[in-house]
Amino acid sequence: MISYYHLSDPFRLESGEEIRDLTIAYNTYGTLNEDRSNVVWVCHALTANSDVADWWPHTIEKDCFLDPDKWFVICANILGSCYGTTGPLSENPATGEPYYGDFPRVTMRDIVNVHRLLADHLGIGRIHALVGSSVGGFQALEWIAEETDRFDKLILIATDAKASPWAIAIDETQRMAIEADPTFGARDPQAGMAGMAAARAIGLLTYRGNPGYNITQQNLAGHDIFKDKHRACTYQRYQGEKLCRRYNAYSYMSILDSFDTHDIGRDRGGVEAALSRIEAQTVVIGLSTDIIFTPQEMKRLCSMIPGAEYFEIDSLFGHDGFLVEHEQLNNILKPFIEK
Amino acid sequence: MISYYHLSDPFRLESGEEIRDLTIAYNTYGTLNEDRSNVVWVCHALTANSDVADWWPHTIEKDCFLDPDKWFVICANILGSCYGTTGPLSENPATGEPYYGDFPRVTMRDIVNVHRLLADHLGIGRIHALVGSSVGGFQALEWIAEETDRFDKLILIATDAKASPWAIAIDETQRMAIEADPTFGARDPQAGMAGMAAARAIGLLTYRGNPGYNITQQNLAGHDIFKDKHRACTYQRYQGEKLCRRYNAYSYMSILDSFDTHDIGRDRGGVEAALSRIEAQTVVIGLSTDIIFTPQEMKRLCSMIPGAEYFEIDSLFGHDGFLVEHEQLNNILKPFIEK
Repeated sequence: MISYYHLSDPFRLESGEEIRDLTIAYNTYGTLNEDRSNVVWVCHALTANSDVADWWPHTIEKDCFLDPDKWFVICANILGSCYGTTGPLSENPATGEPYYGDFPRVTMRDIVNVHRLLADHLGIGRIHALVGSSVGGFQALEWIAEETDRFDKLILIATDAKASPWAIAIDETQRMAIEADPTFGARDPQAGMAGMAAARAIGLLTYRGNPGYNITQQNLAGHDIFKDKHRACTYQRYQGEKLCRRYNAYSYMSILDSFDTHDIGRDRGGVEAALSRIEAQTVVIGLSTDIIFTPQEMKRLCSMIPGAEYFEIDSLFGHDGFLVEHEQLNNILKPFIEK
Repeated sequence: MISYYHLSDPFRLESGEEIRDLTIAYNTYGTLNEDRSNVVWVCHALTANSDVADWWPHTIEKDCFLDPDKWFVICANILGSCYGTTGPLSENPATGEPYYGDFPRVTMRDIVNVHRLLADHLGIGRIHALVGSSVGGFQALEWIAEETDRFDKLILIATDAKASPWAIAIDETQRMAIEADPTFGARDPQAGMAGMAAARAIGLLTYRGNPGYNITQQNLAGHDIFKDKHRACTYQRYQGEKLCRRYNAYSYMSILDSFDTHDIGRDRGGVEAALSRIEAQTVVIGLSTDIIFTPQEMKRLCSMIPGAEYFEIDSLFGHDGFLVEHEQLNNILKPFIEK
């Protein structure tokens, strides 16, 4: 069930700007034990929400690695999103209207500082395990870089300590698509929808990659090139429209921006220095066909974290494999989180 | 130097529609020898033109594989493009105005039929070598599938016998970006430019891939996240704008469409059957980091062509490696074309 925490104090961003009347939406699963030693904090990816059971199948389930009979799992919707935590469609207390394009710039550090406020509010001190896949991993790394000794275990899946030029180029291309739609900029929740649909389709290319499409999107037999739409085309449109029904272009742009400025080495002597201070037992998981965070890059990330262990999930679904290959994931993570 | 061939007869397309007053722009290099045995036909890729020496560095040069002292090299601008051959910005004889969005749908087979008309016009019968990289390879494969015994040698670089769902999804995403720009559709050469810039940026992601960006587009030291643009962002915008200065969205859409319907197996009993009839000595070249036409797919293509030999170029520049790695390319192709 979703809960909300409303802050009375203004929340100061890394940029120096402030957000007043901050709301944090979060979900919890399971029960906090008496000595508060069973906390698992999950950080969600780009356009997901705080309901882990909804977007990450077969994790918050009996005998899975986030078994709610064992763990007290917390996930907070990230700052700038549109699933309950303050974001561009929230009311700007200064004007009484939604922020839209006036929403201040947010960094991964700000997003994590919001998580930390929520943890304090919930009376959570030490955290048994911190889990992040994709942009969730950005948050996990940013958090542990700030509080190196707060966590027993760290689980990083298909992620990075700093946004790579390649990932930034993917995001910029999505911004170009959104800005090609001149309705973006209007003070309207529907602004920029055609652009965002294209942006999502770009994202999807990079989440899935070559084999993902070639396995699932072949044209049917008897395909007529002059009459029929290619199946891969219908799929891209469908995915774009699906995001438009549940998201808005302002939140999307806000989160792309936090993605691009992610760098746990900023003001910490660089990425290597920041990673070298991590004290948690760490597991790093790469996906064999991930083209955003390649196995090679995940191995490199792993090599910079003291004592970290690397596992690779064999998947044909690229980066999205972390949402699909729950059996392989549970086989790695259940023993790790419980030992 | 560019030359033009104007057809007096209407040109019938695969769709059944006709193009009147067809013009074919082409370049030649070197001299046709007396027995007409030194013809090399190069097919160009997506947004390129007929001037091979311009877009493919260190190929039409002394001691390179297209040495103009040895070979009579021909390249024709493809139907639907905007470099001299009839395309959407050409005058529609029926209206006296440019076609724009009324330009008929064109297939790879139509594009090749135009090449064949030009070959007849130039008195070219047998062709020593047919060369195609990327969409150029689509044409080469389509041509040889139609005239299996016209060529001594076939050179295929980073290409496919049929557009894959993955490649089609990339193209559809580009169409979504172009259509997000509502100026697309206007009867104006500048229509859809913001959309086409985004589309080009999408293309570029897939041409270059992860290592290409990560090597060349790192932010400079001292990068300020609140003040400075990411280098990768500037690069994507620059590439988008660069295409807008030399291309138009209607030609771009036309060529994406011909790309997507490419299938040499259509009406020929399927891809395998079509490839199995190729009589030319064939070399297939893959690029180690190409994410559009992966080495694995190139090996598979090679395995279906009788006696074909596979080479892999080691490159960090993805699909674009074929434009960059001219030394490796010449080392493979010079002996092959001369032997």
